[in-house]
Amino acid sequence: MPTRSTSPGKARIGDVARAAGVSVGTVSKALNGTGSLKQETRDRVQSVADRLGFVADPRGRGLSQGRSYTVGFLTTDSFGRFSMPILMGAEDALAVGKMAVILSDTRDDYAREQHLLRSLHERRVDGLIITNRPQGISGPLTSSIPTVYTFDTPDSPDELAVVSDRAHSITLAVEHLLALGRTRLLHISGPLRARTAPVKAAAVRDAAGDHLVQPSMHGTWSEAWGRRAVDIAIASGVDFDGICCDSDQIARGALERLRAHGRSIPEDVAITGFGNWDAMVDATVPGLTSIDQDLTEIGRLAGTLLLDVLEGREVADRQIVVPSQIVVRGSTI
Amino acid sequence: MPTRSTSPGKARIGDVARAAGVSVGTVSKALNGTGSLKQETRDRVQSVADRLGFVADPRGRGLSQGRSYTVGFLTTDSFGRFSMPILMGAEDALAVGKMAVILSDTRDDYAREQHLLRSLHERRVDGLIITNRPQGISGPLTSSIPTVYTFDTPDSPDELAVVSDRAHSITLAVEHLLALGRTRLLHISGPLRARTAPVKAAAVRDAAGDHLVQPSMHGTWSEAWGRRAVDIAIASGVDFDGICCDSDQIARGALERLRAHGRSIPEDVAITGFGNWDAMVDATVPGLTSIDQDLTEIGRLAGTLLLDVLEGREVADRQIVVPSQIVVRGSTI
Repeated sequence: MPTRSTSPGKARIGDVARAAGVSVGTVSKALNGTGSLKQETRDRVQSVADRLGFVADPRGRGLSQGRSYTVGFLTTDSFGRFSMPILMGAEDALAVGKMAVILSDTRDDYAREQHLLRSLHERRVDGLIITNRPQGISGPLTSSIPTVYTFDTPDSPDELAVVSDRAHSITLAVEHLLALGRTRLLHISGPLRARTAPVKAAAVRDAAGDHLVQPSMHGTWSEAWGRRAVDIAIASGVDFDGICCDSDQIARGALERLRAHGRSIPEDVAITGFGNWDAMVDATVPGLTSIDQDLTEIGRLAGTLLLDVLEGREVADRQIVVPSQIVVRGSTI
Repeated sequence: MPTRSTSPGKARIGDVARAAGVSVGTVSKALNGTGSLKQETRDRVQSVADRLGFVADPRGRGLSQGRSYTVGFLTTDSFGRFSMPILMGAEDALAVGKMAVILSDTRDDYAREQHLLRSLHERRVDGLIITNRPQGISGPLTSSIPTVYTFDTPDSPDELAVVSDRAHSITLAVEHLLALGRTRLLHISGPLRARTAPVKAAAVRDAAGDHLVQPSMHGTWSEAWGRRAVDIAIASGVDFDGICCDSDQIARGALERLRAHGRSIPEDVAITGFGNWDAMVDATVPGLTSIDQDLTEIGRLAGTLLLDVLEGREVADRQIVVPSQIVVRGSTI
């Protein structure tokens, strides 16, 4: 375990050993959590090390053990509303294994992604967690680094992944509306080209059957689209008593527009969102029933899965699906 | 420059040297960007290294140069809406110096903060960027690590900092309302105990003078509070034609409640938010005029300032104030 005579941490390992009345080897074992020592010895050495300002150097430990104790976290969406809770969960789980998380935001730019991957590779990250990147990462730079995909299911079933089942998630909303006795449903979705749109549209069709009164309506991920979709539906004369939306923003726009048209929520129309985003679901009147994908749990399980692989533990499931739940508020009942 | 014979990167430095027809020392210089070599030599060595899958180990470089090429980014708010843009800007700036960012989220827990600081110290981070932590970080663990504070001004003028001037920021909103001829203003603020509340209240008083028709109203950072504040103001019979709010959520609640009361926006009442949060300012009808603190620029300048200090460049200003700007939308004109 190397130490340095310059700042930060001016004390050397020998100083700690002398002050604690133990050998240098014992200090090393105590601070690295290795060997067989009494807990009180470990605690005493740690407290002496703290008092003297001595800190071990995990880069040195990493070089000797072939590990860097770092994990790269790669995302495409600038750590927005979806990646952040996943990152928080992953950080929590990885801290248990004393792993630090290095951020890499590709901003959906392929050249930038390649550059960041090379940089992570040079730093000898022990593993990667990748979110919002279903196509996977190709090329020689990553094949040798254990990688866990989150949020989106990767193409290959051999990849490690912790994901959400979007089809099942939206089905929860449809089943909730049907269970409340709603029989004439609309589905207001995001852009047709969005990866998740066809999956959700098919799931809504399957779950609603004849109770879906017209095909899914596609627009943007915005409140403005929710408002416009309601205008379109009302202008077309279609009769509906329930709306299932693919985002909380769409649902908020739809809910507020319906009220502006004089419809009571939930008496005339029950409405559901997707994402359970507090800035939306708690702000509407009444509050918005929504689907929570438990992104923090996805991140936590991804971190745990990666630790299991890195430490050679047996992995029962290489792909874990985290169930969503419906959070019921005044917009439906 | 150490290399490893095991994965990842099976090639050794000697393999690269042979394949490129140069010495091992030249490979080292080319890949580390040191020494005096022709650019074409550097490029050729890099392309051979890429082809063979050889990557240099910056941990080895760090040990030999006494630098880890990592920066700890410490926040208290789980990388929420304020920290994220700062982090993105900092990451951008630090990448220029080939510095990786290690995340640490204290969740406003002192014990957790101490643990994270020790961990960053053990990893020999070259510097720290701290956001949302105005009191500063105390104790022997950090005194030796160059630290830049962002967003909030630290107590000591000796600390390195890149911050926003909140008093001036809210003044921009008041001056905008006055310039539009509004003469009877309300100020709807967040919790009185919030650090920024007294600062903003005093700035509004100073800028509005007699045009502030009653003391600042304090509540929560929510749309619900914006709605309630409008109800209170209307019930009290106070006459007003302009409202300056301390957050976009408060402003959105106030704007929508005013419309429900039959007031036209901006004809009857002009209203401003604070933060320029797209999920709010683009969702209201009309759009919400707001103050943008340019958080990404704050992060970028913090990263650049830290690089300057680490690389021994002269620093003209130890504390930089990034000016806010007002973004005008339909809620005021």
